[in-house]
Amino acid sequence: MKALIVYAHPEPKSFNAALKDRAMATLNELGWRVEVSDLYEQGFKATADGEDFTARADADYLKYAFEQTNAAKTGDGFAPDVAAEIAKLEAAELLILQFPMWWFGFPAILKGWVDRVFAAGVIYGGDVGMFSRGRFKGRRAMLSFTTGGAPETYGPAGLYGAAEVVLWPIQNGILNFVGYDVLPPFIAAAPSKVGDQGRADLLAAFDARLRALDETKPLFFHPLEDFDPDAAWTLRPGVSGRTVAQTRDGEGEA
Amino acid sequence: MKALIVYAHPEPKSFNAALKDRAMATLNELGWRVEVSDLYEQGFKATADGEDFTARADADYLKYAFEQTNAAKTGDGFAPDVAAEIAKLEAAELLILQFPMWWFGFPAILKGWVDRVFAAGVIYGGDVGMFSRGRFKGRRAMLSFTTGGAPETYGPAGLYGAAEVVLWPIQNGILNFVGYDVLPPFIAAAPSKVGDQGRADLLAAFDARLRALDETKPLFFHPLEDFDPDAAWTLRPGVSGRTVAQTRDGEGEA
Repeated sequence: MKALIVYAHPEPKSFNAALKDRAMATLNELGWRVEVSDLYEQGFKATADGEDFTARADADYLKYAFEQTNAAKTGDGFAPDVAAEIAKLEAAELLILQFPMWWFGFPAILKGWVDRVFAAGVIYGGDVGMFSRGRFKGRRAMLSFTTGGAPETYGPAGLYGAAEVVLWPIQNGILNFVGYDVLPPFIAAAPSKVGDQGRADLLAAFDARLRALDETKPLFFHPLEDFDPDAAWTLRPGVSGRTVAQTRDGEGEA
Repeated sequence: MKALIVYAHPEPKSFNAALKDRAMATLNELGWRVEVSDLYEQGFKATADGEDFTARADADYLKYAFEQTNAAKTGDGFAPDVAAEIAKLEAAELLILQFPMWWFGFPAILKGWVDRVFAAGVIYGGDVGMFSRGRFKGRRAMLSFTTGGAPETYGPAGLYGAAEVVLWPIQNGILNFVGYDVLPPFIAAAPSKVGDQGRADLLAAFDARLRALDETKPLFFHPLEDFDPDAAWTLRPGVSGRTVAQTRDGEGEA
């Protein structure tokens, strides 16, 4: 089985690098073949633009997803760096995104990896499927990230707000969108403030999480069957919202 | 009064461009002096790295926010493109971010603008302040973006989840974080699917929103006074959470 770790930190001596190295070692030990995309080391281009295609379907008007769909049809339509990442993603049964939380989300270089690599027509879209009928159904993905703030700041009474809300756009909008079973995130809170022993404990906790992958229950997201395509993909009458972002009470509407 | 529009779309003939042009025209008419950062046109560098500083406080270990704080002290410590954007941001009483929603968030080039320009020691941080004591207190910011999906998909029963949850990381974690009054977003839903009249209606609705700026109530976020710094910045006993991400019921805890 293959795993892909996409790692986005500019400092090779960072704690993010240590987490990446630990994941590589542990997964190798567990029998995974591990590939790493070290985005900073690769100098990965973050910005999605017309240069991402070897030929354009419409040279006069750039509609990015349309060009992705066209590139998917032609076989060699993606720029080499995008094609290489797509191939890694297609081969991986497990995806780990390793990054520092910057401004409540991905560093731009990692967002750009998603913008460019999660291509319409290959990774998602009409013929490929989405959400619970997405291409990566049955595969697993998880976030592993560091924060500057204490764990409590990401609780339901915290200054930053509940982690499941902060992470909703990524976990639902990116990972669940393409069909992954999304495992609970590994959050290394404030590694710069916890000392050597604290950091060692965080690495040990990450190691334990990786060893327990098969017993880890994915997060819940409503399957597509819960939504009505004839009502703009809203929850069907009688289905109560069960996520932080879908809170409509379905009682009595059926 | 000055307004800054940060615009991030690779296609100059896009509907995002039309929204940006409309905002410029309307705001000019209303007496604003409008500056535009056209990130694609500028070839804005999206990726935060060590090259963003003219000199490094620690050349051996890149801790990005620490280098920002150091650069802020030295006066000319930021790379010229970052310094130019900081100056625009500092001058603006109104900030509009104009972008296509990609993967439930900013295009990477716009995320990179935040990563690089919202610099510790200048825009936020210990001496500068944060949240309701943030530097931009009393100034206004709003998102204006296009979506691929219908409006219902961003409702509380929608496939993508409620807009206020999807936008929480940006609206709370970026805009409110630095002190802005965050105005409700302008969401141009599925402009590619609504026809010429639909697009004209969207432009007219945006125009109306801009003309009503002074009567538009900002979104609610808990002020810092609601949190207890001695309890890891969690809501004080007795304060009930009033946002989508802060839902703890404070009753009975005082």
